[in-house]
Amino acid sequence: MYHARFRDPAGSVREGRYDPDDHTVSFGSDEYAFDDPAIDVLPPAEPTKIACVGRNYADHAAELDNEVPDRPLLFLKAPNALASHGSTVTLPGGKDRLDWEAELAVVIGESCADVDADDAMDVVAGFTCMNDLSNRDDQHREQNWVRGKAFDNAAPLGPVLATPDEVPDDATVELRVNGERKQHGNRSQLAFDVPTLIEEITTYMTLEAGDVIATGTPDGVGRLSDGDAVAIEIEGVGTLEHTVRIP
Amino acid sequence: MYHARFRDPAGSVREGRYDPDDHTVSFGSDEYAFDDPAIDVLPPAEPTKIACVGRNYADHAAELDNEVPDRPLLFLKAPNALASHGSTVTLPGGKDRLDWEAELAVVIGESCADVDADDAMDVVAGFTCMNDLSNRDDQHREQNWVRGKAFDNAAPLGPVLATPDEVPDDATVELRVNGERKQHGNRSQLAFDVPTLIEEITTYMTLEAGDVIATGTPDGVGRLSDGDAVAIEIEGVGTLEHTVRIP
Repeated sequence: MYHARFRDPAGSVREGRYDPDDHTVSFGSDEYAFDDPAIDVLPPAEPTKIACVGRNYADHAAELDNEVPDRPLLFLKAPNALASHGSTVTLPGGKDRLDWEAELAVVIGESCADVDADDAMDVVAGFTCMNDLSNRDDQHREQNWVRGKAFDNAAPLGPVLATPDEVPDDATVELRVNGERKQHGNRSQLAFDVPTLIEEITTYMTLEAGDVIATGTPDGVGRLSDGDAVAIEIEGVGTLEHTVRIP
Repeated sequence: MYHARFRDPAGSVREGRYDPDDHTVSFGSDEYAFDDPAIDVLPPAEPTKIACVGRNYADHAAELDNEVPDRPLLFLKAPNALASHGSTVTLPGGKDRLDWEAELAVVIGESCADVDADDAMDVVAGFTCMNDLSNRDDQHREQNWVRGKAFDNAAPLGPVLATPDEVPDDATVELRVNGERKQHGNRSQLAFDVPTLIEEITTYMTLEAGDVIATGTPDGVGRLSDGDAVAIEIEGVGTLEHTVRIP
């Protein structure tokens, strides 16, 4: 089952049902084509925080000359970072290197703390796609990756929320820039899997319904240019698309 | 002028006027003693994020063998970190060193981005007190201070919001543990002052009404023990009090 958040033609925000076969979203008796310009697709969750994981695929850690750490490398983005499917995201100007990072994002379904890994899938509402946009200029200069990772628009999220049964354990995670494949990974390659991440994070922080865990990116990250069109496709979820504006 | 958020005896959350002379809070025609057990004092803001600043007093940077950085050292806490005046805050168990850090906290009054320092006080609703509670065991082991700084209850905030005119430019910031003075600093000692912090943060991140900037701590940080009673008094604001439980 798939859920989508959108602003309807009257300006009301709705959480409707998405049909992947005919690419429509419905709420009550209203049905819209998902790409109908009369509606605005919104991020499929309203997180109070985005808990992100770094270096969670061995191949990506290696490409940045790092190793997979002995426990999840955590960092935070706040809601200011959210951006929508179908949007043009403006990124910080004057930087040498702004990178894409395709990630499988977990959406939490209920307020929870101290969750055991064995029970962790009970608190998962579903999955979506996230681009963990990264400003390497600042990331490499700061202790905490705030300028580097938590800037406005640093977390395009969507297009829809897929319930856990829709997403295979070995779901592929692929990123294309202007139609060219740049990243191709697989959920089964996560160094720390979803239940382990939920247990570790909730040991320290309460997660709320709508909070997001971004599970890390496979190898193949690279530099974005003004005007690039990005597509992140996750098997069982769908394809998050956005374009990039760099002033 | 002073504002306070509280839960009234009927369970409704109210934002009322605080009178520092008779220590009461009023909303409509109702008035309560601020320490009336029939009401619950809440944090005086509802931030979507808490943007924190490290090493912003030279004396504190030195006591941890650091220097004041060449630009503000930023890190984030999410709303899960909030705790109230008058509460008992439970901190992570099994750690060797959980520290207090008294801080002047800025509460933002309106949604804003790319704010010039010259205009920055226009977006400030007021000031309050924050304890930037720190789990040094994990802080010293991780790249981003998430386990170290963003755990549940890591940001007691309050007791009230004081409008900017109430808080002198050289307001004292004092912390006492079990009645004994441990920290004593002054707003005028900030390496990066409030307008500079707002300009720097909003270059990267939109701030929302209710968001909090924690401006850093003076020297005198130290280790908390189970049962400690903490008081943070800022001139012109008042005194944030909480006790500590360490399992």
